Amino acid sequence: MTTQPEHHLVSATDNSKLPFSEQHYFSSYDHFGIHEEMLKDKVRTLSYRDAIFHNKHLFKDKIVLDVGCGTGILSMFAARAGAKHVIAVDMSNIIEMAEKIVDLNGFSDKITLLRGKLEDVELPYPEVDIIISEWMGYFLLYESMLDTVLIARDRYLKKGGLIFPDKASIRIAAIEDAQYKEEKIEYWNDVYGFDFTPFINVAMVEPLVDTVESRSQVTNSAELIKFNLNTVQIKDLAFHRKFSLTCERTDFIHAWIVWFDMEFPSDRQENKITFSTSPHDPYTHWKQTVFYLNQVLNVRRGEKIVGSLASRPNKINPRELDIEISWDHKTQSNRAKKGKFNYFLR
Amino acid sequence: MTTQPEHHLVSATDNSKLPFSEQHYFSSYDHFGIHEEMLKDKVRTLSYRDAIFHNKHLFKDKIVLDVGCGTGILSMFAARAGAKHVIAVDMSNIIEMAEKIVDLNGFSDKITLLRGKLEDVELPYPEVDIIISEWMGYFLLYESMLDTVLIARDRYLKKGGLIFPDKASIRIAAIEDAQYKEEKIEYWNDVYGFDFTPFINVAMVEPLVDTVESRSQVTNSAELIKFNLNTVQIKDLAFHRKFSLTCERTDFIHAWIVWFDMEFPSDRQENKITFSTSPHDPYTHWKQTVFYLNQVLNVRRGEKIVGSLASRPNKINPRELDIEISWDHKTQSNRAKKGKFNYFLR
Repeated sequence: MTTQPEHHLVSATDNSKLPFSEQHYFSSYDHFGIHEEMLKDKVRTLSYRDAIFHNKHLFKDKIVLDVGCGTGILSMFAARAGAKHVIAVDMSNIIEMAEKIVDLNGFSDKITLLRGKLEDVELPYPEVDIIISEWMGYFLLYESMLDTVLIARDRYLKKGGLIFPDKASIRIAAIEDAQYKEEKIEYWNDVYGFDFTPFINVAMVEPLVDTVESRSQVTNSAELIKFNLNTVQIKDLAFHRKFSLTCERTDFIHAWIVWFDMEFPSDRQENKITFSTSPHDPYTHWKQTVFYLNQVLNVRRGEKIVGSLASRPNKINPRELDIEISWDHKTQSNRAKKGKFNYFLR
Repeated sequence: MTTQPEHHLVSATDNSKLPFSEQHYFSSYDHFGIHEEMLKDKVRTLSYRDAIFHNKHLFKDKIVLDVGCGTGILSMFAARAGAKHVIAVDMSNIIEMAEKIVDLNGFSDKITLLRGKLEDVELPYPEVDIIISEWMGYFLLYESMLDTVLIARDRYLKKGGLIFPDKASIRIAAIEDAQYKEEKIEYWNDVYGFDFTPFINVAMVEPLVDTVESRSQVTNSAELIKFNLNTVQIKDLAFHRKFSLTCERTDFIHAWIVWFDMEFPSDRQENKITFSTSPHDPYTHWKQTVFYLNQVLNVRRGEKIVGSLASRPNKINPRELDIEISWDHKTQSNRAKKGKFNYFLR
């Protein structure tokens, strides 16, 4: 039995007299679950809060634009940090909840919420001093809103204005993953006595978004690409980059993992907030992205693997990504093992 | 480092020469993930296998219809059990994978796969001896295919034919759940210093599908309804039933939980296979369904809670469910605590 302090009692509205159509309304907020998951991701939310609160002098009396505001949490951080006004834009009906919450917390006169596509809405100010946005998706770019942030930058950001965050880099490493590859890929070899191998191709093509144990990492990691949000162009988001990894122990390699690191701006080095979604850092809801090789590499400490990764928006659905990874493992005995595989993040 | 036996090496097709459009195809199977989850649910899949394999005498030389065959696993169980012929129907493109798998396992002449709605496809036999189907959803009835199974029964099942499974009952109990209710509901009282209480209503309305620890259960459980698939009519799936629960200890009650139990037919009592999705039984992917009360009941051992639960398909989207739960807690001191709340399973 747990004690139940009085102040913890829930006071949900008695909805039993409402027609079910209104309940439907209550439960119809787009992606309510994902907003809950994002808010509860403390690495994410506290990084934004710290980046804003540790740099209140940058926000004081400034006009701020929040691109894809969701529940409005970042806009309220900016308002509390002293912004003159915050414009919060979101396409989803979650903005109706944001409106209630902004009102409830006394920010109605400080935050203007606009529902619609950023390209379509009319802002109450011709330009803004700061853009804040939490636009990152799995693999940084999957279903990301970065293109919208760049449109906002080009259209509304004052010369010399700031973007929170303003740097994003994608990193790659290789892992030993026999047990999980067994569960996810080899599983299909014998399903209750039947041969289900046609599913191996299906399972291989789709990268897994999952948490990887840091001790699985066999190589060092390499930066694939770094985006400077102050200058990057939408076309740069399709990229093809080489990588070189060094094996830090003798082991098998079953998969590549990809993660991203973020950086917020500040005029003071000590106030620059960063966070990483690497397996060596605390959990985030972005986890890591795992790409299984269609072979196993048997590597020795000190050996090099060179390769390349290409990522492009899918032609039919540009929010999905076509990803091609190729590799060339130079062994000490000069027996090279090359490979290439195409993945699809959907 | 893990040893990597040679027979575990994956032989995924090298897809690097395929155009991305074909990869798209590979990864476009509807709900691939859910089929994986269902197959890996051993309670589910082994119950079907045992119900079929322990009753091979019932399947020998029989015509079997598999309603919503998915990957074809149940059809292959039936074929392996000696069925004369199996007709497997599914609307989803997963049936293309089922076709490959059936072929690969040598059942092409025993299993006929038909893509389409059961109401529309033309069966190669005018009637069948046995219907097999895994139609159950969360809360038994959410997004379930039971209505399609009943249509198949009325249209194709021989008089005296069998349905696997043929009994399904829904049960209710009450739980102490302070910690999780705190995380899911009270959380919104203070989100990084802001008042997010409008989300409490949103969170309350949507029941949670989650695993409940068996020690959370405070009352006994009661059967809400039992469906006999041999006789039940589609209209019976909307129901309103009373329940009476007895508190087995002095504790708080925060939520109702609902689960279901299944039963397969046999002519021999000892061959009747059953399984339960209760919190006292091994994990299934159906978990339990949790409905938070908008109050906390303070109960004493031996006290009774009477109530009722109504479940009806939503008028706009009949695969979604409108659920109303009311309760009346009779305390020993004759202080009754009544309540009622409407939920929406979407």
